[in-house]
This record gives sequence, C-alpha cells and structure tokens, in this order.
Amino acid sequence: MIHEVIVTTRNSAGQVHIAPMGIHWRDNRVVISPFKPSTTLENLLKRRDAVINYCDDVRVFAGCLTGHYEWPVQQALKVDVPRLQDALAHSEVRLESIEEDELRPRLLCSVVHDANHRPFRGFNRAQAAVLELAILVSRLERLPRSKIQRELAYLRIAIDKTAGTREHEAWGWLMDRIDGHLGQMEAGQ
Amino acid sequence: MIHEVIVTTRNSAGQVHIAPMGIHWRDNRVVISPFKPSTTLENLLKRRDAVINYCDDVRVFAGCLTGHYEWPVQQALKVDVPRLQDALAHSEVRLESIEEDELRPRLLCSVVHDANHRPFRGFNRAQAAVLELAILVSRLERLPRSKIQRELAYLRIAIDKTAGTREHEAWGWLMDRIDGHLGQMEAGQ
Repeated sequence: MIHEVIVTTRNSAGQVHIAPMGIHWRDNRVVISPFKPSTTLENLLKRRDAVINYCDDVRVFAGCLTGHYEWPVQQALKVDVPRLQDALAHSEVRLESIEEDELRPRLLCSVVHDANHRPFRGFNRAQAAVLELAILVSRLERLPRSKIQRELAYLRIAIDKTAGTREHEAWGWLMDRIDGHLGQMEAGQ
Repeated sequence: MIHEVIVTTRNSAGQVHIAPMGIHWRDNRVVISPFKPSTTLENLLKRRDAVINYCDDVRVFAGCLTGHYEWPVQQALKVDVPRLQDALAHSEVRLESIEEDELRPRLLCSVVHDANHRPFRGFNRAQAAVLELAILVSRLERLPRSKIQRELAYLRIAIDKTAGTREHEAWGWLMDRIDGHLGQMEAGQ
C-alpha cells in the first residue's frame, strides 16, 4: 500500500529539501524509494535522516511541480531535519539499510519519533483530483492531447463539487502548466 | 469544501444507522445534508444527535452500498450514539438548526466533543479510486456502458499501483455490483 507524503531532508550545506514521495511500510520500517538521481536520495545517503510529513495540503504537492517551495517548517524533535509546520502528523526517521536498484533504491528507515498534531477530517475528492492532476503534469511530455483533455474533464468534476481554497489554488498552478504545454503543442503542429 | 465521512445516528428504537455522507463546515458548525427521505435525516430530526466519523477505511463507504454494515462501534463520550471504533478521529454533534430544502435540508450541528485517535498516514490514490467507484455504483442506472467501462479502466490504475488489502476488498465488493449490472445490461439488449 502506497501513501503519498512529503519527505523533508537536508543537504550537507544544511539546506532543506521538500519532495512529494510515495512510501510504504514493511513491518515497522518506512520504505522510501527516491529516483536515481534525486536530491532526496543524495541527502538521505549523506545525512541518514529525514522527516515523513503526513500532509493534507495539496498545494505542497502541486507546488513542488510548479515552483512553489516556501512552506513553513519547524524544528523536529529527534532528527536535524525540519518538519512541515502544517502537516497533520509526522514521523522522524533514520536510514537503516538500503536495497539497491538501478532506478529506485529502497531506503529502509526506522521511526525515531512519531507525532499526531491534528485530526484527519475525512476524504476530500478534490484533494485526490489535484494529486492525480499533479501526476498527469509530471507525465505531460509522454501523453497525447486527447488523453490530457479527457483526464482533465474527469478530474475537474471533483474540483467543481468539493474543493476548498487550497485545492483551487493548487489546481490553478497545475492548470497553468497544462495550458502552457497544450499551447506549445498547438504551436508545434 | 466537502469532506466524505461516515455519519452514525440512532433511531427511536435505539438501532444504529451508518451512512457515508458529504459534510462541510460553516464557521464552527458542521453542516450535514442528508437526502429526503433518508434514515439519517429521520434519526437526526428525532434524536438530534450524531457522530461524524473521520474514517479512512474505504470498506465502510463501499460496504454501505453493497450490504456490509457490520463495523465495530463503541460508545461515544457525550452523545447517545456510538462511534466507529476504527475511525482516525470523530466529532460528537448536536442538531442546532435546520435550513429547509426540498431535496436536501441542511442540518447545522454544534460539536460537543472532538477526539483525535490515530494519525493520518498520507494520501492513498486507491482509497480515492474506491470512493469514485462507489459514486459510480450509486449512479449505474443512469450511465451508458461505455462511460462505466472507461471510468473503471481509469480508476483501476490507482488500485493496481497503490491499494492495500482493505482497498482491494472494497473494490471487489463494488466490482461485483458493476459486473452484475453490466451482465443485466447485456441480457437486456
């Protein structure tokens, strides 16, 4: 079972890196599988700690694809990596072992601290639609125009019916990217 | 912003009713809008209290459409309606006022007790796909075969890639309903 979360890490100069990532659990270990090469992979191999932020603000996910990185962070308790201030919960983790892979090595991490900050408030269909649109945006180059437009029309239904202000904002950022891409496709035809 | 939750109520004979519902917040009131007629509406008008269960087990949502109602409940703290045992969080609410509507009256409720039991663990695309499939199942009679099959193919991607056992089970219940319906459509042609 894959959960979409925000992983924070720090590089050797101390700079914080924020990245959306699909994680899974194996027994009581968190398995993070960043792509090769990626900043999260590099940071984790070098400093060996990270924070898993269980975040329901989809702007953070959409923001990482569209250049919006300025999310408030605060110090974690047991690792020297900050956590997202607005996450509903977070786990502070330490790298224990690595399963090599050419594309996506699996980093098995133990949880050194776990905190539950605010309650889950139920599923929101618009949040799911923004996540799916973010995945679409990350694959735009490989998709035909018709498929982009069909998925867009489908996902927009949940936005129109169930979104709050954060979801509308995230959707808008992603739509700017899609509109730009479709415009380029048209110009290139 | 609409959140999909499980609302528990009790009828005048004391029987518990479990129903998936989209709620929203207005200031610090929860607004529940059950259809007319429905058991949740009747129960809330009669006994004036309910529990909002913030539940991430999609089997409860799919189960209400497919005849699986046996979910463990336990006593709430301040209202005489039980809460779902496995919900991540819950709010105990009391009916304060009603905005009439022919189709879906809006029941404004105040929160009398709020509890956060377990942390949110991140978004899961399969959970969202099960919810969308549940909505599809509730509208089967009104949809052409081609649209059902197209949505199904799209939603199945997230199931194949990210589902856990609970999501697979819920998906299976809904698929039985869809297969039955498509079979009937075929026989009727």
